[in-house]
Amino acid sequence: MNSNGARAWTPSGVVSLLTDFGLVDPYVGVMHGVILAGAPAARIVDLTHGVPPQDIAVAGFYLERSWSYFPTGTVHVAVVDPGVGSARRILAVGADGHAFLAPDNGLLSGFFERAAWVKVLDVERFSLEERSRTFHGRDVFAPTAARLAAGLSPSELGPDCPDPLRRARSGPKRLGKDQIEAHVLLVDRFGNLVTDLGAADLEGEPSKWVARIGERRIPLLATYSDARAGELLALVDSFGCVEIAVVQGSAARRLALSPGAKVRFERS
Amino acid sequence: MNSNGARAWTPSGVVSLLTDFGLVDPYVGVMHGVILAGAPAARIVDLTHGVPPQDIAVAGFYLERSWSYFPTGTVHVAVVDPGVGSARRILAVGADGHAFLAPDNGLLSGFFERAAWVKVLDVERFSLEERSRTFHGRDVFAPTAARLAAGLSPSELGPDCPDPLRRARSGPKRLGKDQIEAHVLLVDRFGNLVTDLGAADLEGEPSKWVARIGERRIPLLATYSDARAGELLALVDSFGCVEIAVVQGSAARRLALSPGAKVRFERS
Amino acid sequence: MNSNGARAWTPSGVVSLLTDFGLVDPYVGVMHGVILAGAPAARIVDLTHGVPPQDIAVAGFYLERSWSYFPTGTVHVAVVDPGVGSARRILAVGADGHAFLAPDNGLLSGFFERAAWVKVLDVERFSLEERSRTFHGRDVFAPTAARLAAGLSPSELGPDCPDPLRRARSGPKRLGKDQIEAHVLLVDRFGNLVTDLGAADLEGEPSKWVARIGERRIPLLATYSDARAGELLALVDSFGCVEIAVVQGSAARRLALSPGAKVRFERS
Repeated sequence: MNSNGARAWTPSGVVSLLTDFGLVDPYVGVMHGVILAGAPAARIVDLTHGVPPQDIAVAGFYLERSWSYFPTGTVHVAVVDPGVGSARRILAVGADGHAFLAPDNGLLSGFFERAAWVKVLDVERFSLEERSRTFHGRDVFAPTAARLAAGLSPSELGPDCPDPLRRARSGPKRLGKDQIEAHVLLVDRFGNLVTDLGAADLEGEPSKWVARIGERRIPLLATYSDARAGELLALVDSFGCVEIAVVQGSAARRLALSPGAKVRFERS
Repeated sequence: MNSNGARAWTPSGVVSLLTDFGLVDPYVGVMHGVILAGAPAARIVDLTHGVPPQDIAVAGFYLERSWSYFPTGTVHVAVVDPGVGSARRILAVGADGHAFLAPDNGLLSGFFERAAWVKVLDVERFSLEERSRTFHGRDVFAPTAARLAAGLSPSELGPDCPDPLRRARSGPKRLGKDQIEAHVLLVDRFGNLVTDLGAADLEGEPSKWVARIGERRIPLLATYSDARAGELLALVDSFGCVEIAVVQGSAARRLALSPGAKVRFERS
Repeated sequence: MNSNGARAWTPSGVVSLLTDFGLVDPYVGVMHGVILAGAPAARIVDLTHGVPPQDIAVAGFYLERSWSYFPTGTVHVAVVDPGVGSARRILAVGADGHAFLAPDNGLLSGFFERAAWVKVLDVERFSLEERSRTFHGRDVFAPTAARLAAGLSPSELGPDCPDPLRRARSGPKRLGKDQIEAHVLLVDRFGNLVTDLGAADLEGEPSKWVARIGERRIPLLATYSDARAGELLALVDSFGCVEIAVVQGSAARRLALSPGAKVRFERS
């Protein structure tokens, strides 16, 4: 953690929400209500609520790849919280002029290195009057986000946290100079298979690499329109990761792969 | 109904929307457009649009358990409306400084007791110029909500309603001093089975009670983290109801139960 | 195109988004972030993100039937973009005091006739600093929408477009004075089958027409409540199209029809 201190934080009034709550139940809507009750001028963005239930790794990935597109001074609230109701702590992190709130379960691991401050939230102080043991998104995270968005100094949030929980990261495995074993991290709405292989992990010309799945050899191209409708291709996607796609189709269905599956990349 | 009168209502500019429209079609988005056309400063919250189609009971339940988290002065619009296009009336209700708009089909039953005012909406006066017979969310509810959010006095909405339709409530059945028969009210995104048994219906120590489903006896614990991953438990949830859950899993799938199913609670 | 010129455009600060991105991934949320970074006072409406993947015709239909409900001065962003990353152009269209941004793939065909201006976007000028080849919603459309919402003159967007791509429209086929062959355009959340038959295509009394599906003859009624629960009916819906519905049920399931299916209408 660096020594920029808390002064770098100036709220923009924007609050982003990332959860595994889905949109079928009223959980997310109620969080909006609590935030607007505490910060009437807040502008709230649903980053996504479609994180697979309890999937801290996907939540962390989404947040790490998305936060920088928001205005400086955004409060990012990430609630994927299998430990809700237990003694697990809640962390507030400041980094690059943004603030992050999440359970202390590793979700924010990607931000500790560049953090200006990491705080253990004083839950008693910032909760709603009645605090359930099952829904801290509503009872703790939302009112705290409202306070931050409305100008609360981060130094008020609670004591410094010397020992945030860090998430073990698996990531791709280099099998040799010209072989990497990566994994499907998630399947998006289009059936694209996003892997944990970052563009930077591919040495040399990306176009020299192919993905191998069983007997198939799938070329790494620049964009979807470099292949024809129905064809398989690999490409660096908008997350900066290598994904496997079918033009105007679903790679997940075509290949019958799901998160966790191994994908080998080879350089020819 | 009490005699606080309409004066208690001061709009905050917040409008909440609760429907069974889902988010796949543009129905909800168009309602947002109509509200912003009428009230440019409105801040609109989607409480949820995932109410099961035509399910007035679930809509009422969600609204009753959610409204109080919103700022005083919120207009809550609830459109679950099997009678759209018929002669069914539209009601506007003021209670505790909040306003509620819904079809006169029982959806707002939970608010009549504490209402400061109950009005039959003057539909002709507040509709868009062209009013369809199938989408009053867009053509009647949205423009009316905009007017209320922008400062229209509730006394303008229409005549007092002396006879709002009240929804029959089933609720749990007491089978004896130590036995209650409850019902699954809804299944949330996590597969938690929310029952119609309120925490207050459990006499004495909650931890003395168990849920019985077939041969299974499921203990009533304080929170998810009091059981281990994969275990069944019952607990008082964030709605204030008893729910059946599987830690990091789906109780709905495990038990193959769906809304309407009976769940017996016993005190040991 | 008419000669109203660009002066008719005065931004309201409202931006509507229509995509096929779904809400499970963070793609839409990130677009919100980019828009707020560029136009802090923007109010963003998700018209819908449930367009079937790559379905330009449905996207165009939704936009044509929805835009007029938004405030004058709305920027409508429509991203259904099978050609992303290719040389396909991006268009900006001004019509009736609204602005529209979409790929040049026919999506905006319904707006060219009434357009005050049609521009080819200067992509280099308005993109984020780093532009991916797979997600122009984030990297091109969102920052451009922010600029327009914040007051950029449309004349700055790029050169006039003399040759926008027009989408071939199939539409219903008149088989005779008293027979029309229409098609299912989409299935909505309720299982209603929306056809491409507009109310204006039915000559004379709508109630003289019936839909024929196999041996079934389905009457054209005024609204859902003119039939009983479980009954099939046809009616003019809120899009202004004839749809087939089941009262409190799903016509799509009952009839096992999906988009593209033919529906014959006959006058008796």
